[in-house]
Amino acid sequence: MKKPLILVTNDDGITAPGIRNLISVMNELGRVVVVAPDKPQSGMGHAITINATLRVNKIKSDGPQQEYSCTGTPVDCVKVAINEVLKEKPALIVSGINHGSNSSVNVIYSGTMSAAVEGALENIPSIGFSLCNFSIEADFSPALKYVKSIAEKVLEKGLPARTCLNVNFPSVPAEMIQGVRICRQALGYWEEELDKRTDPSGKEYFWLTGKFKNLDNAEDTDEWALANNYVSVVPVLTDFTAHSAIEHLKSIHLNK
Amino acid sequence: MKKPLILVTNDDGITAPGIRNLISVMNELGRVVVVAPDKPQSGMGHAITINATLRVNKIKSDGPQQEYSCTGTPVDCVKVAINEVLKEKPALIVSGINHGSNSSVNVIYSGTMSAAVEGALENIPSIGFSLCNFSIEADFSPALKYVKSIAEKVLEKGLPARTCLNVNFPSVPAEMIQGVRICRQALGYWEEELDKRTDPSGKEYFWLTGKFKNLDNAEDTDEWALANNYVSVVPVLTDFTAHSAIEHLKSIHLNK
Repeated sequence: MKKPLILVTNDDGITAPGIRNLISVMNELGRVVVVAPDKPQSGMGHAITINATLRVNKIKSDGPQQEYSCTGTPVDCVKVAINEVLKEKPALIVSGINHGSNSSVNVIYSGTMSAAVEGALENIPSIGFSLCNFSIEADFSPALKYVKSIAEKVLEKGLPARTCLNVNFPSVPAEMIQGVRICRQALGYWEEELDKRTDPSGKEYFWLTGKFKNLDNAEDTDEWALANNYVSVVPVLTDFTAHSAIEHLKSIHLNK
Repeated sequence: MKKPLILVTNDDGITAPGIRNLISVMNELGRVVVVAPDKPQSGMGHAITINATLRVNKIKSDGPQQEYSCTGTPVDCVKVAINEVLKEKPALIVSGINHGSNSSVNVIYSGTMSAAVEGALENIPSIGFSLCNFSIEADFSPALKYVKSIAEKVLEKGLPARTCLNVNFPSVPAEMIQGVRICRQALGYWEEELDKRTDPSGKEYFWLTGKFKNLDNAEDTDEWALANNYVSVVPVLTDFTAHSAIEHLKSIHLNK
């Protein structure tokens, strides 16, 4: 039987350690094609490139996978892969392994997760993987057996229509990981978000920064899972309608 | 009584006709501060600027509103406004009026709507407005009485927690608009998304393009409302968890 076709992308760029680890695991599961940004694209959310051109370059691969770098965002990479690079629809799209957490509301800002959401919009089973450690020296090895088992399960069973997975790994040694928990996105937000500085000519500028605040103490959230050394798996939707709000809006006569 | 503080932003840039129309309506409802991108930022989704600096410049206003241009994305503008420019929490954030539809899955790519989602993450009532007409010559005037009535209602009644509104206007004369409908996001996708070209040196490059395909014939969707000359209002959530998928994932032992 032909092995499944797997598309690999990320938002930290094609040379990042996280994607190199992800490629090595996917090579055990299928035929791998990599289409990933040629430079870091963190925090790009679901951005697409519509006011500039895109370039795609085949690059030398260090293994059985085919590799292409793309000048665009993670979502651009998925679009380019599906519409141009791949000759068949992939059985799975995986994105990451991101350097840094995409739990709670970070899913909304994440280029890693937006690539997975784009896969879900195309109705292709898709998973974003992230490690709660921003360091270029981060140890991805404890995550890899879970990356493999989750990807294998999704290849075997599929996912609900137009739903992808947001998988986050605690940054702890392998023997401390307690297992995998299916979770919901914790309620949280970012605060103190600007670092104001003055440039050499005396003008103000800003760096976006801030602290994540978890507002959710429940035990069914991704934040709880990660704080307790579980791998968190959150199913993520592509229908952003707040269905429960529809009747409320009618009741306040917003449509009058 | 002090009039409510209203933050205005967009993704087409601070000089776009859409935001100038939106500002004129908001000046009737409150004290207006504009913090908007200094250049077009369409398709930026929920992108934030984390690998570069941000600049904010106070600019000359043509009315009672205060205006600031920002070098960042629409989401950056909301963060800069809340954390730096505004001295109090705004009562309302409005984004737009976008030149072009943000119905169906376009909500996911839209900088206009991401600014509203960012407002919702801060638990501030927020609305994104879009007109289904990309032209710089588009006539926004039929939309304005609905912009005012919807914003007034939201100022008066608020919105459900961490939920914002995606409001789209059909591009038809005022007398053809049938009213306002509360809707859900139609199921749809983009196809044929790349336009391949060759540059003068013979190398390939691409423009993102494509056609939107509506897969949803139901009458409770935004696509149906717009096709039938209604103003569509979709409540949009910030909890992206596919709650209905959690039990399914447990049933396939994804956590084993």
